[in-house]
Amino acid sequence: MGNQFFNGLTMVEPKTKVVVEQVGIDSVELVHLPYHPDQRGDLTVGEIGAGLPFVPQRFFVVFSVPGPQIRGDHAHLKCHQFMLCLKGSCKVNVDNGKKRVCVLLDDPTKGLYVPPMIWATEFDYSPDATLLVLASHLYDPADYIRDYLDYQALVNNHG
Amino acid sequence: MGNQFFNGLTMVEPKTKVVVEQVGIDSVELVHLPYHPDQRGDLTVGEIGAGLPFVPQRFFVVFSVPGPQIRGDHAHLKCHQFMLCLKGSCKVNVDNGKKRVCVLLDDPTKGLYVPPMIWATEFDYSPDATLLVLASHLYDPADYIRDYLDYQALVNNHG
Repeated sequence: MGNQFFNGLTMVEPKTKVVVEQVGIDSVELVHLPYHPDQRGDLTVGEIGAGLPFVPQRFFVVFSVPGPQIRGDHAHLKCHQFMLCLKGSCKVNVDNGKKRVCVLLDDPTKGLYVPPMIWATEFDYSPDATLLVLASHLYDPADYIRDYLDYQALVNNHG
Repeated sequence: MGNQFFNGLTMVEPKTKVVVEQVGIDSVELVHLPYHPDQRGDLTVGEIGAGLPFVPQRFFVVFSVPGPQIRGDHAHLKCHQFMLCLKGSCKVNVDNGKKRVCVLLDDPTKGLYVPPMIWATEFDYSPDATLLVLASHLYDPADYIRDYLDYQALVNNHG
């Protein structure tokens, strides 16, 4: 968390800017949020125009996931998602039907932006992992593509 | 987390409805969100119209808080907040200038809705506490009332 050791002292380095990293799968982004360490604890923050890629209408939290379990494993037709592992760690595979990248979420300042029509799979949760997902749309079962072959057919038609 | 023991077996009880509890301080609410336990892990969810009291424009996460520290300790002129302790626990004092109630957040399914013009103070963080705050407005230093006497003068004029 920005900590470095220097002559036996701990240096805590605040980060005030949002840094957006492309992960190489369409417009999937790994957003590095500001980090404000403080004697009273640490804080990370995102807002519209500074790290939060859309206005959320919904959120959900995944926790107490047994280690080997896989969650997600679907794509959305319209819904945008922003995923943050606020405690512990997990991995997310993001896939555009042609290639796949694995992103490690192991720090509350990392937010993974997953746009619609990206196949995402969350796995390798640490025992304490707490995954927050902010979503652009209300829950709609018709927005889910749950079959990977259906998904590939759709993205190939799109392409 | 909805677990009960019955003849040596663990019963996990899903909760599908949002239950809103008044805490006795103006329109402050403790929102009990749906809880969906699953072999693949547990999930809690809120959305506009079902537990999420406003559309968030900003979020922040507080973590690694040394035990005795106090955070918050201010009121907002316009900003609504929704606070969830997604890991560990903390307490929040909500105060309307006349009386004060202490709310324990010790479960990711509990969300505390703090409307504008309520003085809120977070404290007694457990070592692993991870507090998510969803906020209705972008950051604006002019929206903060940081002096309790100023706050009392304002709410007394309002009343």
